[in-house]
Amino acid sequence: MQTLGKFIVIEGLEGAGKSSAVAILTQTIQAAGHTVVNTREPGGTAMAEAIRDVVKHDWVDEKVTVEAELLLMYAARAQLVQNVILPNLEKGNWVLGDRHDMSSQAYQGGGRQIDQNMIESLRVITLKNFKPDFTLYMDVEPKEGLKRAKGRGELDRIEQEDLSFFERTRARYLLLAQQDHNCVVIDTMQSIQAVHQDVELAIKQFLEN
Amino acid sequence: MQTLGKFIVIEGLEGAGKSSAVAILTQTIQAAGHTVVNTREPGGTAMAEAIRDVVKHDWVDEKVTVEAELLLMYAARAQLVQNVILPNLEKGNWVLGDRHDMSSQAYQGGGRQIDQNMIESLRVITLKNFKPDFTLYMDVEPKEGLKRAKGRGELDRIEQEDLSFFERTRARYLLLAQQDHNCVVIDTMQSIQAVHQDVELAIKQFLEN
Repeated sequence: MQTLGKFIVIEGLEGAGKSSAVAILTQTIQAAGHTVVNTREPGGTAMAEAIRDVVKHDWVDEKVTVEAELLLMYAARAQLVQNVILPNLEKGNWVLGDRHDMSSQAYQGGGRQIDQNMIESLRVITLKNFKPDFTLYMDVEPKEGLKRAKGRGELDRIEQEDLSFFERTRARYLLLAQQDHNCVVIDTMQSIQAVHQDVELAIKQFLEN
Repeated sequence: MQTLGKFIVIEGLEGAGKSSAVAILTQTIQAAGHTVVNTREPGGTAMAEAIRDVVKHDWVDEKVTVEAELLLMYAARAQLVQNVILPNLEKGNWVLGDRHDMSSQAYQGGGRQIDQNMIESLRVITLKNFKPDFTLYMDVEPKEGLKRAKGRGELDRIEQEDLSFFERTRARYLLLAQQDHNCVVIDTMQSIQAVHQDVELAIKQFLEN
């Protein structure tokens, strides 16, 4: 499908500083003259937010199967891509996503250790060949990220996993970032000023190309 | 996996008389000395019922994509099979399902005309090689079924589709029933007495084998 706008995605573990990066990217892209539409995953439409509530909920007395979690993530993604992301890109708007498909690959594939072929099948069913134009992966050491996230309040069902889950998720993120020519890694273990500079530089370089 | 109980499924369009058949099957299987656990799809666990609410809801101003609908059905199914159906079969209980995988094949595959390979991929991801031991497909002409269902009250989002949707769904049901050696078709255009006799005969024959 021919699209006029660009789809930019921010990825990373909890506490990696995705929200600050989203703010910087929004300002910089708007300053370049584009209309920015912000989305988050799972969520971003009424139905997708209802799916988010189901998947994030702490279901007492019921094991959330890895399959159901993965299918719900892709169901929410199908709603968002077809109802919000694609129509906006077609209009020429830029869409700035707080998480997208790389999260499923990293959390469910890396963290939950779900077979990569299974996730790839779901990606093809849901997205066909749709991919972000540019991804910014905010890399953080899981221990530090969780410390920052905990400082903000309660963690949801997925955020309550043990440290090894997030170590596996981070390792998959780094591998995916390396394989994706449209992805830049930001080291968020630096000072906040240095992180913000790197984010701004990365999006400016993308805007110039 | 070795299971001691049997998984029996009732399938059919709205208004085919599934509820009456469930009552007859429950009584007959209990009379043969088995414990019967009743399930319905989508649903049957707290999380799966929440998914049911999302998929049945009439989302104003938002197109429910065929992909999201299909993924939600399988997410609910994963929860039910792993948390309820398999543990009960392992204990030796019989599980009597009001709808199961054949519904997705018929409604989403036949009605919504989703590619069969896509549904087959989801079936394998969610269920591996798990299948019902016996399926009773209650066949009804869509026009008659909808008339009966409307007499019972309001129709949900999927039940509000046009007649051709249900004609395609029925045709797929009949095709699947023909290909499945463990499926019996009940003609529900007969008198209620004749339908009930056929249902009872079918389950008695299964119990004897």
